[in-house]
This record gives sequence, C-alpha cells and structure tokens, in this order.
Amino acid sequence: MQFPDYPELLIELDAGVLYLTINRPEKRNAMNAAVVNGISETFTAIADNRDIRAVVLRGSEGHFCSGGDIGGMQQGGTKEEAERQAWEFNRSFGRLAAQVNRAPQVVIAALEGAVLGGGFGLACISDVAIADVNAKFGMPETGLGIIPAQIAPFVVMRIGLTQARRLALLGERINGTAARELGLVHYVTDGTAAMQEQLEAVLSKVRRCAPEANAATKQLMLDVGSTDLESLLDRASDDFANAINSHEGKEGTNAFLEKRLPLWAV
Amino acid sequence: MQFPDYPELLIELDAGVLYLTINRPEKRNAMNAAVVNGISETFTAIADNRDIRAVVLRGSEGHFCSGGDIGGMQQGGTKEEAERQAWEFNRSFGRLAAQVNRAPQVVIAALEGAVLGGGFGLACISDVAIADVNAKFGMPETGLGIIPAQIAPFVVMRIGLTQARRLALLGERINGTAARELGLVHYVTDGTAAMQEQLEAVLSKVRRCAPEANAATKQLMLDVGSTDLESLLDRASDDFANAINSHEGKEGTNAFLEKRLPLWAV
Amino acid sequence: MQFPDYPELLIELDAGVLYLTINRPEKRNAMNAAVVNGISETFTAIADNRDIRAVVLRGSEGHFCSGGDIGGMQQGGTKEEAERQAWEFNRSFGRLAAQVNRAPQVVIAALEGAVLGGGFGLACISDVAIADVNAKFGMPETGLGIIPAQIAPFVVMRIGLTQARRLALLGERINGTAARELGLVHYVTDGTAAMQEQLEAVLSKVRRCAPEANAATKQLMLDVGSTDLESLLDRASDDFANAINSHEGKEGTNAFLEKRLPLWAV
Repeated sequence: MQFPDYPELLIELDAGVLYLTINRPEKRNAMNAAVVNGISETFTAIADNRDIRAVVLRGSEGHFCSGGDIGGMQQGGTKEEAERQAWEFNRSFGRLAAQVNRAPQVVIAALEGAVLGGGFGLACISDVAIADVNAKFGMPETGLGIIPAQIAPFVVMRIGLTQARRLALLGERINGTAARELGLVHYVTDGTAAMQEQLEAVLSKVRRCAPEANAATKQLMLDVGSTDLESLLDRASDDFANAINSHEGKEGTNAFLEKRLPLWAV
Repeated sequence: MQFPDYPELLIELDAGVLYLTINRPEKRNAMNAAVVNGISETFTAIADNRDIRAVVLRGSEGHFCSGGDIGGMQQGGTKEEAERQAWEFNRSFGRLAAQVNRAPQVVIAALEGAVLGGGFGLACISDVAIADVNAKFGMPETGLGIIPAQIAPFVVMRIGLTQARRLALLGERINGTAARELGLVHYVTDGTAAMQEQLEAVLSKVRRCAPEANAATKQLMLDVGSTDLESLLDRASDDFANAINSHEGKEGTNAFLEKRLPLWAV
Repeated sequence: MQFPDYPELLIELDAGVLYLTINRPEKRNAMNAAVVNGISETFTAIADNRDIRAVVLRGSEGHFCSGGDIGGMQQGGTKEEAERQAWEFNRSFGRLAAQVNRAPQVVIAALEGAVLGGGFGLACISDVAIADVNAKFGMPETGLGIIPAQIAPFVVMRIGLTQARRLALLGERINGTAARELGLVHYVTDGTAAMQEQLEAVLSKVRRCAPEANAATKQLMLDVGSTDLESLLDRASDDFANAINSHEGKEGTNAFLEKRLPLWAV
C-alpha cells in the first residue's frame, strides 16, 4: 500500500487496522488543507482493500481535533477571492465527511480533549465512537460570528435535530458522558489505558464480522431515508442473495455448522 | 373471524386482543415460510376489523425469535435457483415487516430471550415494545458472512443510524436495559409475571383510545419524512375534520362533558 | 416595534428577549384563535429583527398550554360548515407551528403544568426546552375520539417515530424527567426559581452567539433530510463564505484575536 505523505497526518497499519492520527498538536489538531487532503487520499487509497478491516481516527497529544484552522486560509486580495477561498476550504471538509461516512471499512473515532467544530463533525461520521469522559464536545462557530456549515447535516443525522439546534445555537460544550447520553458516542472511558482497552474490545468484535458483509450492510443503512423503502428492500434482497452465495456466506455457514471460527475471524 | 392455520403460529383472540405466538421452540422460534405467511395472512384478515384493538407478538417457551431460519431454505440445484430462492425468502420478510408496521391495530411486542436478526427486525416494527431485562438483542448476520438486509431500514428508522451501524458492524448483543436506553423498547421488566403485568397496563391504555382515531394517527405518523410537510398537514386537517365529526369524535366529546368513559373504553 | 394586542397573549420585550405568555389560565391556557393569531402575528412582526435574540414561550399561572380549545370552535349549522371550521381551526395551528419552528430567533419553551396536545406540539418546535420536573406531557387526543393531527409531524421530528407512536396510541402522560430522557426537552428543573435560573443561563449563552450566524445555522439544520446532501453542503459553503466575510465574521475574528468579547455579546 502507498499512503499519502504529510507531516500533519501520521499513518500506521497494524494487523488489518489503519491508524490515522491528526498531528498538529500546537494547534490542538485543527485541520488545515494538508490534514483534509491527507485523510481523503488515504480513504481513496484503501477503498477497494478489504484486508484493512477498520480505520481508527484520533489526534496527537491529548486532543482529537479543535476544528478547521481558519487562520490557515490564505485570504487573497479582493473580497471575491477571499470569499472563493473560504467557500472552497469549507466545502472540501464536507466532501471529506461524506467520503469517510461511506467508507467500506469500520471507522472508529477515539475522542479525547477538544472535539470541536470540524472535529465534532468528524466524530459524527464514525461507525463507532469512544469518548474520554473529559473530552469537550461543541460547535463554537456562532460565538465567532461564523457557522457550523459543512458539519450541520452530519450532526443532525447523528444526534437528531432537537439536540443539534440546541448545541449549535447556544455554543454549548458537553463532556463524554453527555455525548453518550445524546447518542453521539457509544462508549465512555476514563484515561488513556481505558480508552485503549475499549478500542481493542471494539476491534476484536470487528474482526468477527465478515468484511464484505459489513461493507454492504453499512451502505444499505446509509441509504435509509434517501431511497424509497420498497426499492431499498429490493436492493437489500439482491445484496442478501449475493452474500449468502459468496465465499463469505459459504465460509460463514460452514464455520457455524462445524462450530469453528470463520477464516476472517482467525 | 377465520384465521390461518399453521402449527408454527398460535393464534388466540381474547377481549379484543389478538395474541400471535411464534411456535418453533426447538429453533428458538426462527421464522420459516410458514411463520412469515401465517403472520402476514393474519394481519390481512384483520385489516378492516376495529374490534381487534391490539395485536401482541411473542414467542413460545422463553424466546421471542432468533431470526430467519436460513437452514430452512430449500436451496435448489443451480446457483441461479439458489440465489432466486434466497432472494425471495429474504424479500418476503421485508414485505411482512412493512405490512405489520402499518397495521391499523396497536402492535405490541413482548420480548424475551433471543431477539436476533429478523426477530430484532420484528421488534422494530411494533408500536409498543416490552423487553425482559435478560432478553438478548442483536444482529449477528455479518458474523455469519451474510447481512441484515430486510431489517436494515426498520432498524435505522427505529433507533437511528448511529446506533444501527454500531450494532450491525460489531455484531454486538445488548440486553433489555440497553435496548430501552437506545429507544428500541419502551418498558423493561424482570420475569414472566412482571412482563404480563406491564402488558396488561399497556392494553388497558389502548382500550381508552378510540380505535379509528388511533389507526388514523398511526398512519399520519408513519408518513412523516416521506411526504412533504405542507401536504401532510393538509391531510392531517382532513383526518381531524373527519374525526371530530365522526361517531367516535361525538361520543368522545359527549363522554368528556358527561364525565363518563366513552363507549370504546368500557 | 408594534406588537399585536390580544388579552389572551401577554407580550413583553426586555433586553433583547421577547416573552410571550399564553394567558387563558381559566382554560389552562388552551389555545383559541386569538392565541394562535397573536403568536403568529408576533413572529411575523419580528421576522427581520436581529436585536430580538430570543423568544421565550410560556403559559400563565402554572400551566404551559393544555392544547387546542375545541370547545371554542363556533360549529356552524350544516355538517359541511362544521367540518370546514374544524379543518381551518386545526390547519391554522400547523401553519403556526411551521412558522415558529423556522423563526430566525432562538425559541425557548418554559414548560410547567399541562403540556398537552397542541401545547405538546408547541414544545416540539422550540430550539431549547426547559421543563419543570412535574410538568405533564401527553397527547390525549385519541382518548377523546379525535387525533393529534397538526402536531404529529412535529412530534415525530422531535422525538422520533418510535416514541411518538407509543405516546400517541396509548394516550400516555410523562413528566419532565421522562421528557428529557426522550429528548423532548433539554433541561429539567424543580420549581419556579430553578426554572428562572436555568432560563437565565440559556439566555446568557444565546447572547454569546452572533444573531445572523445563529439564524443561518438554524435554517441549514432545519433543511437536513428534505434537501439532498450535496446541494445542502453547497449552500452551507455559500452561507459560510458570507458569514466569514460579514460584519459578524470580522468582529468575531477580531474579538478572538484581541481576547475580548464580540460586540453582540456585551
């Protein structure tokens, strides 16, 4: 595998798990163009790779991500150029979020420290989210006179309109426990060791699940609500018939009958 | 009333409540074609019957339903025939789920033991769900190399995308308490007697509500999101004007003024 | 500012906050045409006013609102006239709910006592909801032979289909704590003083957020689900580029760099 090479993004592949670590600790891992491009290029590179079963998103040195690095936008001379650059920088994050949201691998977010703005958005497109109890979640944008723009749809799809509008319009910060209550994250842990332990438990469950089956299931679930029900159910049966007659389906059935683990779980 | 006659499905009508019990205890009530057809034919038979106010779905001997009985599919000779049979068996469950989801009666699921795969899906199309604290909920499909296909939309509509993707992609099992936290069920009880008591409490509330009004309300709520808001509100006013000028609406108003129970509640 | 003048609706403007109090205590603040029209005309009057940062909805003398005052409909002579009047009275509430739901100001509901029927619906279109622990929430309609018609979509959008169908089809009542568990309200307080304290805390957070940015964020979030994702993200970038180059965006950035509060927060 060839991975993109940016100092702002650490990439490590270990035992079928790809670890992506945003590495701008001096900015609490605020995302600049290199971070956005690096994550996007990585997911593009692994799109057809089913040996990579999970991707873990995290930040270096105690913070997940404090948002978009607005200071890093090179604002050009004219008002039109400045607006164009702001538009494009902002939009690139939405393209990234949509891409990661639909990645065929299981995407796991390990959330500590600042989980703000765009970082909050990244948390919202994970399949599994683990939060440190002391993590700080929030959308501080309107307190700065700007808006949570590209993340708005992903936040609403994650926690529902009721909580999204409250958090955004009050600029409210919540911790890991409250994030779990809202359904933003799935597990809350206290400290680095507990986070690591929970992450291992999640990865061990991922390994029990067949990679192609997981990828097909995720795409189906992501299309609920935007595809009409009957068409989606027809497609679900196509996927089911494919799966049960695939190598995975046959191996899974045999392993079950022979009371052994299937090959993908070993 | 003429009900379908399958040994795999026990049907009992008592005081306006229809009890449907999946009866394949040797398979932890896994659904074969007879179960799917039996439930579907029963709901078709009662579609215009407002004397049946509620339907209780449950399983025999301590389990609700362990999913689709894949072993029960008679896989034909050629690959094409096998795929066609898999497709059709799978799709028939989605048709059932869509039908039960829109039944005009109040559908109550009493959930104990295994609530897995297609059984998990059935739980997701009830109006009211009561779970034993020790019930086991999960979507084990991708661990077997197959996918939670027909149930995917109903799971997402029930508990939201965030929890659905986590449970499916990890093959995670949760108990009754966790199911209530996720909004999958409404009440948690401990043991058979407590389940029965909660069921009676629910049925007694159902009897206080007018059957035609309940049926109209349920259809309206099911169309939120797939019908544009203004059209839905126009239709809601049609339904309201019909209701308030109907026998039920007049009886309800009179009973309220006369400080007595309406006829449907006696 | 010129506000509508109805004895059934008390209107007070104080420090950028508009307090709307439904004032029919003898009817537990059931809404008649004057209440509906008064609230609607008020929101129309302030639609372009960003000096009014928040609107607080509440009821007089210990109850929020017990629903629509059906007794107040002047039922005409013929069946057709009666149906037409019922239709129109019902539909007017849906128009109000849709309008308030999209108000550019932050709408805060302070919920005590009866929060029933149409009052339940009003709670569902607030940005922030505070409930007294002893408030009583419910949709009693089908117990009276009628239906929760105009509120159905707003209830489903607020708490999801799963809880909405259960509450409506059982006519179930829940208190403030349960309402918070369902995500219907955000904060629970005990008694008048605690409610007031929580309201002040919320208003103080609203004042930290830029009014135009809040208004744009709210409209974006309300369109999630009814606009396709890519179009919505394009529009979000338009809004972002506008915001960052607006007076608010420049003031927010400067205040942040100068470590002072922005002008709108002072």
